[in-house]
Amino acid sequence: MLYNITTDHIIRQALQEDIGMGDMTTNSVVPFGKQANGRFMAKEKGVICGLSVVRRVFALLEPEIRFSPVCRDGDTVERGKVVAEVSGPAAAILTGERVALNFLQRLSGIATRTASFASMVAGTTTVITDTRKTTPGLRILEKYAVKTGGGTNHRMNLSDGILIKDNHIKVCGGITAAVESAKIHAPRNMTIEVEVESIEQVEEAVQSGADIIMLDNMDNETMAEAVKIINGRAQTEASGNMSGKDLLAVARTGVDMISIGGLTHSVRALDISLNLLFR
Amino acid sequence: MLYNITTDHIIRQALQEDIGMGDMTTNSVVPFGKQANGRFMAKEKGVICGLSVVRRVFALLEPEIRFSPVCRDGDTVERGKVVAEVSGPAAAILTGERVALNFLQRLSGIATRTASFASMVAGTTTVITDTRKTTPGLRILEKYAVKTGGGTNHRMNLSDGILIKDNHIKVCGGITAAVESAKIHAPRNMTIEVEVESIEQVEEAVQSGADIIMLDNMDNETMAEAVKIINGRAQTEASGNMSGKDLLAVARTGVDMISIGGLTHSVRALDISLNLLFR
Amino acid sequence: MLYNITTDHIIRQALQEDIGMGDMTTNSVVPFGKQANGRFMAKEKGVICGLSVVRRVFALLEPEIRFSPVCRDGDTVERGKVVAEVSGPAAAILTGERVALNFLQRLSGIATRTASFASMVAGTTTVITDTRKTTPGLRILEKYAVKTGGGTNHRMNLSDGILIKDNHIKVCGGITAAVESAKIHAPRNMTIEVEVESIEQVEEAVQSGADIIMLDNMDNETMAEAVKIINGRAQTEASGNMSGKDLLAVARTGVDMISIGGLTHSVRALDISLNLLFR
Amino acid sequence: MLYNITTDHIIRQALQEDIGMGDMTTNSVVPFGKQANGRFMAKEKGVICGLSVVRRVFALLEPEIRFSPVCRDGDTVERGKVVAEVSGPAAAILTGERVALNFLQRLSGIATRTASFASMVAGTTTVITDTRKTTPGLRILEKYAVKTGGGTNHRMNLSDGILIKDNHIKVCGGITAAVESAKIHAPRNMTIEVEVESIEQVEEAVQSGADIIMLDNMDNETMAEAVKIINGRAQTEASGNMSGKDLLAVARTGVDMISIGGLTHSVRALDISLNLLFR
Amino acid sequence: MLYNITTDHIIRQALQEDIGMGDMTTNSVVPFGKQANGRFMAKEKGVICGLSVVRRVFALLEPEIRFSPVCRDGDTVERGKVVAEVSGPAAAILTGERVALNFLQRLSGIATRTASFASMVAGTTTVITDTRKTTPGLRILEKYAVKTGGGTNHRMNLSDGILIKDNHIKVCGGITAAVESAKIHAPRNMTIEVEVESIEQVEEAVQSGADIIMLDNMDNETMAEAVKIINGRAQTEASGNMSGKDLLAVARTGVDMISIGGLTHSVRALDISLNLLFR
Amino acid sequence: MLYNITTDHIIRQALQEDIGMGDMTTNSVVPFGKQANGRFMAKEKGVICGLSVVRRVFALLEPEIRFSPVCRDGDTVERGKVVAEVSGPAAAILTGERVALNFLQRLSGIATRTASFASMVAGTTTVITDTRKTTPGLRILEKYAVKTGGGTNHRMNLSDGILIKDNHIKVCGGITAAVESAKIHAPRNMTIEVEVESIEQVEEAVQSGADIIMLDNMDNETMAEAVKIINGRAQTEASGNMSGKDLLAVARTGVDMISIGGLTHSVRALDISLNLLFR
Repeated sequence: MLYNITTDHIIRQALQEDIGMGDMTTNSVVPFGKQANGRFMAKEKGVICGLSVVRRVFALLEPEIRFSPVCRDGDTVERGKVVAEVSGPAAAILTGERVALNFLQRLSGIATRTASFASMVAGTTTVITDTRKTTPGLRILEKYAVKTGGGTNHRMNLSDGILIKDNHIKVCGGITAAVESAKIHAPRNMTIEVEVESIEQVEEAVQSGADIIMLDNMDNETMAEAVKIINGRAQTEASGNMSGKDLLAVARTGVDMISIGGLTHSVRALDISLNLLFR
Repeated sequence: MLYNITTDHIIRQALQEDIGMGDMTTNSVVPFGKQANGRFMAKEKGVICGLSVVRRVFALLEPEIRFSPVCRDGDTVERGKVVAEVSGPAAAILTGERVALNFLQRLSGIATRTASFASMVAGTTTVITDTRKTTPGLRILEKYAVKTGGGTNHRMNLSDGILIKDNHIKVCGGITAAVESAKIHAPRNMTIEVEVESIEQVEEAVQSGADIIMLDNMDNETMAEAVKIINGRAQTEASGNMSGKDLLAVARTGVDMISIGGLTHSVRALDISLNLLFR
Repeated sequence: MLYNITTDHIIRQALQEDIGMGDMTTNSVVPFGKQANGRFMAKEKGVICGLSVVRRVFALLEPEIRFSPVCRDGDTVERGKVVAEVSGPAAAILTGERVALNFLQRLSGIATRTASFASMVAGTTTVITDTRKTTPGLRILEKYAVKTGGGTNHRMNLSDGILIKDNHIKVCGGITAAVESAKIHAPRNMTIEVEVESIEQVEEAVQSGADIIMLDNMDNETMAEAVKIINGRAQTEASGNMSGKDLLAVARTGVDMISIGGLTHSVRALDISLNLLFR
Repeated sequence: MLYNITTDHIIRQALQEDIGMGDMTTNSVVPFGKQANGRFMAKEKGVICGLSVVRRVFALLEPEIRFSPVCRDGDTVERGKVVAEVSGPAAAILTGERVALNFLQRLSGIATRTASFASMVAGTTTVITDTRKTTPGLRILEKYAVKTGGGTNHRMNLSDGILIKDNHIKVCGGITAAVESAKIHAPRNMTIEVEVESIEQVEEAVQSGADIIMLDNMDNETMAEAVKIINGRAQTEASGNMSGKDLLAVARTGVDMISIGGLTHSVRALDISLNLLFR
Repeated sequence: MLYNITTDHIIRQALQEDIGMGDMTTNSVVPFGKQANGRFMAKEKGVICGLSVVRRVFALLEPEIRFSPVCRDGDTVERGKVVAEVSGPAAAILTGERVALNFLQRLSGIATRTASFASMVAGTTTVITDTRKTTPGLRILEKYAVKTGGGTNHRMNLSDGILIKDNHIKVCGGITAAVESAKIHAPRNMTIEVEVESIEQVEEAVQSGADIIMLDNMDNETMAEAVKIINGRAQTEASGNMSGKDLLAVARTGVDMISIGGLTHSVRALDISLNLLFR
Repeated sequence: MLYNITTDHIIRQALQEDIGMGDMTTNSVVPFGKQANGRFMAKEKGVICGLSVVRRVFALLEPEIRFSPVCRDGDTVERGKVVAEVSGPAAAILTGERVALNFLQRLSGIATRTASFASMVAGTTTVITDTRKTTPGLRILEKYAVKTGGGTNHRMNLSDGILIKDNHIKVCGGITAAVESAKIHAPRNMTIEVEVESIEQVEEAVQSGADIIMLDNMDNETMAEAVKIINGRAQTEASGNMSGKDLLAVARTGVDMISIGGLTHSVRALDISLNLLFR
C-alpha cells in the first residue's frame, strides 16, 4: 500500500528534474486545447508494477488527465497487452510521458525479475527477499516492486531490525557480546539477525539468542549443514551473490530465505511504451 | 562538475531513507568512541564514478569522517584495486556504508557500461550519448556517470532542447509545421532535433531547418542512406534499442551520435566493497 | 505553460512569508462565514500577466474561493477594465489579496514593458529577448511574463545553452579554444553562443563554429558592420544597456535579437487593484 | 541582522534555479584547478546592500571561495568604487557570478532609492517606511534593504500587527466595531492601525483607540488637518502613491511616517559589475 | 483560523515520522477494500481543540476518508461524549489513527488547561496569556489551542513585538537606553514591552515609553504597588511560575495579563479515544 | 546517537518558527559586536537530556557560538548545578536562547520522568518502555530522551514492527487469522506483537506464534495469571494507563515491559535557565 504522503516527494522530484524550466518542445509545438488518448502497452512479457505511481505522476502534473489501469500491479502480461489507458490534455500527457514510463518500466523490471527468481524456488518453503541495495531515494517503491513480484521484504532500513554483520562482530569482539549488547540497547520489538560465515559461528549465533541467522557466502553443502545445526532454533537466510546461483539448489539446503541484492541494484527495465492518438 | 547545491538533496534523501529513526544495530553494539579505518576495493574491473558523492555522504552524516580517494572518477581499475580510504568514528562509517556503496556501485556501473560501448566505436567519429531514460531523481548523477565513462550527454531535461518526436509531428500535422512552430515559440538559443522513422521524412526534416535529425529504429542500410541524404546539413543521431546492436556497424553508417537508453535504465552495479579495521 | 509542479513552491513561499503565524487583522475582525465578491481592476493601461498564478494563490490558500479571469494573459487592457473576478470566504480573500496583487502587478509590469519594447521594433525581423538578470527565485514566472508580453526567451539557466563570455574566453586563451572545448565537453544538443566586443573578434567567432554571436556594447555602426561580416553564418544578438537605446535603430543594424536585462531587473509594477463587496 | 536560518532557502533556490543541471559553459571550457580573483565594482553611485547575501551565495556554492567586502552595507559608494573582492576556483566563481549580482544589484537598488527618499525628508521628524508590496519570496531581504537605506520597516507580514483597512471596516460595519473586535481577539502585544480616507473618519479612529492612523490618499491640506485633529493621540502614516509626490511637503503636514510601496514593487537595480582575473 | 498553507508541513511531518516505510501491521492484516466507521470519544471532561487538524491528517493520508465533527473547537465536552465521526477505508483510518489522536489529545489538553486557568480569573478584567515556551515546531497549533481554551495570545515569535528582558537591559546599560534604541531601530508598528523585577524599575519603564510592563517574579503585594504606580500609563503583565499560584489573587493586583509558560511547556494530554467498527 | 541528518529539520523548523522575520528586540537593542558568556543551570533536580540538540541550535544559528556541556545526557543533576556553558556573539545567543531552552527543558523533563518510573521497578527484570504517543514531529528526540532516562524504546513507528491491536483482530476475525496474515505479508525480520485483553485470548496469542504479547488494561492478578500461562513462550508487555499505577506491583506480575504513554504525551518541562554575562 503506497500512500501519497510517503511517495509524493519522489514523484515530484522526478517531474521537476525532467521538466526543469518547462517542456520547451511541447510548449512550442502543441496547440492549446489539443486532447490525446493513449495506451500503455507491454512490448515484452513481464509483471506489471507501478500503476498507482503513474496515476500520481499525471495527477500531480495536471489534474484533468484521466488514467485508467486495465490490469493490476502484480499481473503478468504478455507482449502486446494494453496495461493502462490515459486521456486528457495532449500537452500535459506528452510532458509527463517519460517520467511515467521511467517509473513503470523500472518497477515492472524489478517485479518481473523477482517473479522469475520466485518461480525458481516454487514448491519449496523458501522465499526470495530483497536487501538494502536499492537505488538511492527509491527504496519504498523498489521494495514494493519486490513484493509485487512475489518476493518478501527484508529490513526496510537501518531502524527496523538488528542485523549484526561481520564488522559489528569485530567491533564487539564476538557474536555473543554483540547480541548481548543489542538485547540491552535496542528497542524491545526488534528481531536480531546475525551474519555468520562459517560453521563454527553457527552454534554461537544460535546460543546467543539470534532470531535470524544469515548464512553468508557458503557453498550449498556447508549451508545445508548449518541449517541442520540450527534445526529450527532460528530462521535462516542465504546470502552472497545469489543472483547467479541455482536457487532451487540453494532452497533445498532448507534455508527460509534467499536474499538477492541484484533484485534492485542491477535492474533491467521492462519494455513498455505509450501509444498516443490526438483529437 | 557536481556542486553540493545540486546534489545534496539526493544524498540527504538517501541517507534519511536508510537511517530512518536511527541505525539500531550500530547504536546498540558499537562502543562510543570506537574508531575505524576502511578501504573501498573494486571486486571486479571497471570504471570508477561517484567518489565526490561518497565524500559527501560521509560529510553530511558526520563531519569527523575523513575520506581520501586513491583514484579519480573515470579511472579504470582492476579487480582488487583500492579506490578510496575512509577513517573516523566507527559508528558513523558503519551507518553510512550502504548508502555510500549504493551510489558508488551504481554510478560506477553506468560509467563502466558507457566505457564499454564507447570502446566499441573507438576510432570512428561517432559518440555514445545517453537519454532521459534515467532513474527518477538521480538524473544529474547518472548523466555525470555517462560523461565519466567517456560518453556524451544528450538533453538534460525537457527544458534545454527541442526534440520533436513522432507524437509532436502528429499533433502538428507534419515535420515542417512542427519545426516552424518551434522556431517561433521556443527560446532562441535552443537547438531543434527531429525524430524521423523513414527515408521519406529525412529530406523534409533537413529542409525544415532541424539542427539534429534522430534516425529512429532504422536498419543500418537505411541509416547509411539517410546520412548520405543529410550530407552534413544537420547532425545525425541513431536511436532505438541500440544496446543490443553491433555499435561499430552502426557507427560506420556515419551517424554522429548513438543514443542508448540502456546506459541508465538497465544498470548493473559494479561490485565494490568496503573493508574495515577497528581501533 | 505553467504547471503547478514547477511554480507551487514559489507561490507557497510567498503565502507563508506574508501570512506568518496568521493574518491577525482578518482573524480578529472578520466574522466567521462572511462572504465576499471582488474585481481585479486595471488602474492603468497595460498587458495582463499572471492570472493562473493568482488562481493558484487562492486555491492553495482556500479551495472554496472561486477565481474567474475575464481576460487572458497577454491581453492589453485599458485603465478601468476588470481583469478577473473572485468570490468566496471574505477572510481568505482578504488574507490572500496582497500576495495575489504582488504577483499580478509585477508580472503584468514585465509583460507591459516587454510589449512596449517589442512595439518599437515592430516591422523588423528583430526580436526582443530577456536575460538571466531576473529576480532571484522568480525566473520561471518572469520569463513567462516576457513571453506573454511578446518577447522571446533567451537561456532559461546555465544548463540549457552554452554562452561563452569574455571571462570564459580569457580563461581559455581565445575564442577558438573556448568553442572547441565546448564542442567536445558540452551536451550535443547545446547551441554555442559567443560574446564578442570588437570587429576583430567577429570573424574568429564565426570561424570557430558559434551558432549565435552576441555583439556586446557596440555602437550601431560597428554592429551593422559585424552583421555584414557574419552574413547569416550565425545568429546575432545585440546586448549591453539596451533599455535606454533607440531600439529601432539597433534593429536596423540587422541583428536577430536584442537582449534587455532591464526587462526583469528593473521592473515597474502595473497598477492593479482589488475591489471587494461583502455579503 | 540576517541569519542563514532565515535566508538560506532563498539563496539556495536562486542558485538551483540558475544552475539547473549544471553550468554547461563553465563545465565545458574552464580547466580544472584554474583560480580567479575578482572585484565587485559600482558602475554608478549608490548605497550598497546585500554583501552578506553575496558571501552566502559563494559559500553555499563552493566553500573554498573567499569573499572580502571592502565596504559595509549602507555605505554610499561612488561610481568606480570597489565594494568587495572575491577569489578562489574560477569555475565556481563564474557559476555563481550572476546570482550574486542579481541579489547585490537589486538590494542595492532598493537601498539607494530609499536613501534618496529619506534625504528628501531630512531635517523633519518624518520617516520613510516600506509596505508589504515586496517581491514574492524576497521580503526579508527587501525589508533589510529598506532599513539599510535609512528607511524604517512597517509590518513584516500579516501576523505582526493589526492594520484595519477599508475592507475590514466595511465587513465590520465601522471603525469602532472593527477596533473593538481587534482588541478582544488579537494577541495583546499587537499595535492597532486604522486606515482612514476622510477627515470624518479621523476622530472616530482616535476615539476607537487606534495606535496608528493611516491617512490614505489625502491631499496635503487634508492631511495637515488630520494631524492637527489627532494631535499626538496616535501615530500618523501618510500613504497612497507617495513615490511620485513632493515628500518634503508631505512631511511638513506633520505625519510621523510616509509609506511607499514603490520602494520595493518597482525597483531599478543598481549597476554593479564583477571584474575577474585568472591565474 | 488555521490555513493549510501554515500547518500542512507540521501534519505531513507527523504522518511521515509515524508511517516511515509503511504501516506494516495494517498492510499485512487488513483486507483490501475493507471499510470502517469510527467515533472519537472523550474519556474525560475537557475542552476540545484540533478538529480541523484531525480532518487534515486524514485528508492528507487518504482523500476518501470522511471526517465529521460533532462539536466545535472550544466546546466543553463531558466524559463519554462523541466529538467526531470518521468513515472510509479501514486501512487508512487505522494508519492515521495515532497521529490524529496525538494532535487532538495534546491540543485539547492545552485548551482544557487554559480554560481551567481562565475560569480562575473569571469576573476580573485580567486575561490569561501564553508564552514562547511552546513545543518546538508546534507553536502555531499550541497558540491556537490557548485561544480556543479562552486565553489570549502573547507574542507569536521574536518578530512580532519588542520584549526587552533583563539581558537586553544589561546589554544596553539600562531600561531607558534599551527602549530608546528600540524606538529608533524597530519597525514602527511594534509595541514595546519591558520586563521589570523591582519597584525601582517600574517608574523608569513607564517614563521610557513602554507600551506593556512585565512584572516578573513579584509577590502579589509588590505587584499591586507596581500596578498602582503605572496607573494605566502602560498595560501590565504578571509573569514568573504562575501555574502554581492563586491566579485570582494575582488578578486582584489589577494586572491586565497573567502569562503562563506551563500552558504549553507542561501539557497533560486529554484522554480521547477512537472506537471503530468494520464493514 | 542523534545525527544531524535525522534531526536538523526539527531544529531548523523550531528556529524558523521562533525567529520569523527576525528577532526585533535583539536586533533593535543589542550593539553589534557585543559578546556574551552564559551558563545553563538546573533550577530543580533532574536528568539532563538534549545537550547535542542545544549545540546544534546554536550551530545552525551562528557558527561562532561555542557551546560546552559540563555534564552528559543522562546525568542526574542537583538544583543549582551548571549543565553547560555558552559563549559568543550576544545577539545570536539571545536570539537562540528560547529555542535552546524549549528543547532542553522538554527532553530533560521526559528523561527525568522516565528515570523516576525506572527507579520504581529497579531490582526487577521489568523495563519501562515508551509508546507512539509522542509529540507530533518530535518522536526521534523524545524516544532518545526516554532511552537517556533509563527506559527502553518500543516501536519507533508503524514500519518497524507488527503490533496487532484489537481493531486489527476485529478486521481479521481473530488473533490466529491476523497473525497468520502478518507472517505471510510482513517483512521477514519483523517481530509480531499481539494485544490481548483477556485471559481467554492469551493462549490463542501464544499458539498463533506471537513474539510479544501485550496485556492491555488488566488488573495485576489477571496479568500475573497471563504471565504464568505464557511461561516464557513470548515476551510480555503491560499496557493501559500505567502512569498512575504502582509500577513495582505491576513489575512483580513478571511482565517483561511496562509501556507508558504518559512518558511523552504528558510532559512536565524540567526547569533550566540560562544566565548570561556580557562583555
